Amino acid sequence: MKASVQQQHLAHGLAIVSKAVSPRSTLPVLANILIASDDGRLRLSATNLELGITCWIPATIEDAGAITVPARTFQDLVNTLTGERIDLTLDPRTQTLNVRSGSSNTDIKGIDAQEFPPIPVPDLSEGVSLNVNDFKEMIQQVVFAASTDEARPVLQGVLLNIKEDQITMAATDGFRISVRKGLLSNPVRQEISVIIPARALTELARIATDGEQMLTMNVPPGRGQVIFHVKDAELVSQLIDGNFPDYRAIIPRSYKTHTVLSTPAFLKACKQAEIIAREGNNVVRLNILPGSDSPGVVEVSAQSEETGASQIQVDANIEGSPLLIAFNVKFLREVLDVIKTPSVALETNQNNTPATIKPIGDDDFVHVIMPMHLG
Amino acid sequence: MKASVQQQHLAHGLAIVSKAVSPRSTLPVLANILIASDDGRLRLSATNLELGITCWIPATIEDAGAITVPARTFQDLVNTLTGERIDLTLDPRTQTLNVRSGSSNTDIKGIDAQEFPPIPVPDLSEGVSLNVNDFKEMIQQVVFAASTDEARPVLQGVLLNIKEDQITMAATDGFRISVRKGLLSNPVRQEISVIIPARALTELARIATDGEQMLTMNVPPGRGQVIFHVKDAELVSQLIDGNFPDYRAIIPRSYKTHTVLSTPAFLKACKQAEIIAREGNNVVRLNILPGSDSPGVVEVSAQSEETGASQIQVDANIEGSPLLIAFNVKFLREVLDVIKTPSVALETNQNNTPATIKPIGDDDFVHVIMPMHLG
Repeated sequence: MKASVQQQHLAHGLAIVSKAVSPRSTLPVLANILIASDDGRLRLSATNLELGITCWIPATIEDAGAITVPARTFQDLVNTLTGERIDLTLDPRTQTLNVRSGSSNTDIKGIDAQEFPPIPVPDLSEGVSLNVNDFKEMIQQVVFAASTDEARPVLQGVLLNIKEDQITMAATDGFRISVRKGLLSNPVRQEISVIIPARALTELARIATDGEQMLTMNVPPGRGQVIFHVKDAELVSQLIDGNFPDYRAIIPRSYKTHTVLSTPAFLKACKQAEIIAREGNNVVRLNILPGSDSPGVVEVSAQSEETGASQIQVDANIEGSPLLIAFNVKFLREVLDVIKTPSVALETNQNNTPATIKPIGDDDFVHVIMPMHLG
Repeated sequence: MKASVQQQHLAHGLAIVSKAVSPRSTLPVLANILIASDDGRLRLSATNLELGITCWIPATIEDAGAITVPARTFQDLVNTLTGERIDLTLDPRTQTLNVRSGSSNTDIKGIDAQEFPPIPVPDLSEGVSLNVNDFKEMIQQVVFAASTDEARPVLQGVLLNIKEDQITMAATDGFRISVRKGLLSNPVRQEISVIIPARALTELARIATDGEQMLTMNVPPGRGQVIFHVKDAELVSQLIDGNFPDYRAIIPRSYKTHTVLSTPAFLKACKQAEIIAREGNNVVRLNILPGSDSPGVVEVSAQSEETGASQIQVDANIEGSPLLIAFNVKFLREVLDVIKTPSVALETNQNNTPATIKPIGDDDFVHVIMPMHLG
């Protein structure tokens, strides 16, 4: 292989793929990045076997070829070569990649490209077209509710369902559920229902930059994989096998108290209460007090044996019965952080039944949180 | 105590003193910040017994008093109370500080201010006046050469010598020496020679903001302490007891090869070589090659059994004999990072004798590095 690239293209490509590198794997080649000539461009790939990212960058290819090189060494080197042309030359006999730029000349010992796991190629004609900005917002509004518990792999994933022109994403860790719906511009012929690792979607949101209009999703039949194709980059993830909990059955259908709060004021109150709550077990109490003539108020409070006590008043429009209910403050903060409307509704029944949080004026998002014991 | 303060003043004061907090001490009060009314202002103090930082902020004091509260809880709380007036009220019976701002109301359990270690008060009339910007630059140019080895406490310090109108700072870890001189606007009557912990000077450089013109240094006799007074803040540090090595004897007085390089080009070459060198033992070789008619060149190179090899050419004006010499690349990078002149001189004798690095056009700074074995 013999190729020339612009430093900024190579640095950008390495920043995209490097998140899939697996530096501490038992398979040394997974700590490397694959560099290959590909139809007049340079292809960069990294994989940890669960997640693979590929990126294509403009290049002048003089001789075709491929090699894998240690990701960190190569990326750090490229990042020091600011604003210059870089010449890459592979010595196939020693599997050494020569990196030359300006007065700098480095030989990096590589591993044969044959040892790199194969990366599947998507069939773009069969794919589902998704709007990048919408899809990124959907990801952001559900991924945080996925579990991080290795013992429950299904809950580490996000359920993605596409039926006709309806797309739904849902995640739950057993204590909360986040569900976000959307519309596709082109309906699909066949329903798709897959569980995608939350981490893969987080990475996808990172590499799909706002400049891009659409991305394509492919679920090749019988392969247990999903492939996302964005401009000049691809992300492949293993799907999670298993039955996703029937979250729809848990979403409450009615409420006894309907509380509307300013989203930023409620979020700020949670952040303040969390400073005390985190010393204990993250419990905050919401004392929902409807007003008779005047609007009501929600008292957000936390208490810790060691540190003290905090109480914040948040004005609210409350319909229904008063209620004292406790939540994990981290859960409240995380959902309020992804709600973009100025007001939010909290729908409650009893202090031991799930509560619902919905943005006012956006029917596509719903979040359910189990309360904690008042103690 | 009953006092009102502006949120931004309190947040700023806490950011200054919190670096001296000792969260994991066996003495619980050291994890706290002292808050005390002081002559119409509020005084904030934190100490880890070696280093103490005090800061005064504007306040409206209604009742005098003092309390200590957990640093992290208090600072995090204040940071969430953006842009508001904060009312602080101490309940002396329960030693609880009530923090009220807007609709937020928090009680923080404190520890009696009597348990907080006393902070010495400097005699400002006896102090040495130092220009803040000059002194910060001096600190930056020497502290990195101090040792981090707990076993050699003297080398963890910086020797500060003031004689008449001459000020000198020196630090060494046994492998390199950094010496910076300066001039005082007002000569001192009595020579001062103290060893100040490098960490205390780093913190001083952080809290002495550029807006301030002068700072005052006090070394109260027989107390083993140094006190730095900047506008609205004070830093007290224990001095290090012991004999600082006679670094002057080690600074080479002559050279066989004088090499002048562009500081940024030399620094960039070191950073590139370090990517390979760090895989081994940080060795870079400098091959100093004087030119006959043309200017000379320094070949900066590194090699690692595992990763590969790197070579960078740096143009240089070289007088004297050619030389191949090896250095710890981290040491080269660190000194080049603090040299502000566009060109730098490397003065060498043999590959096993110390080399000197000097900024061209600035006689106040000199740095000595021991070479490594060429292997």
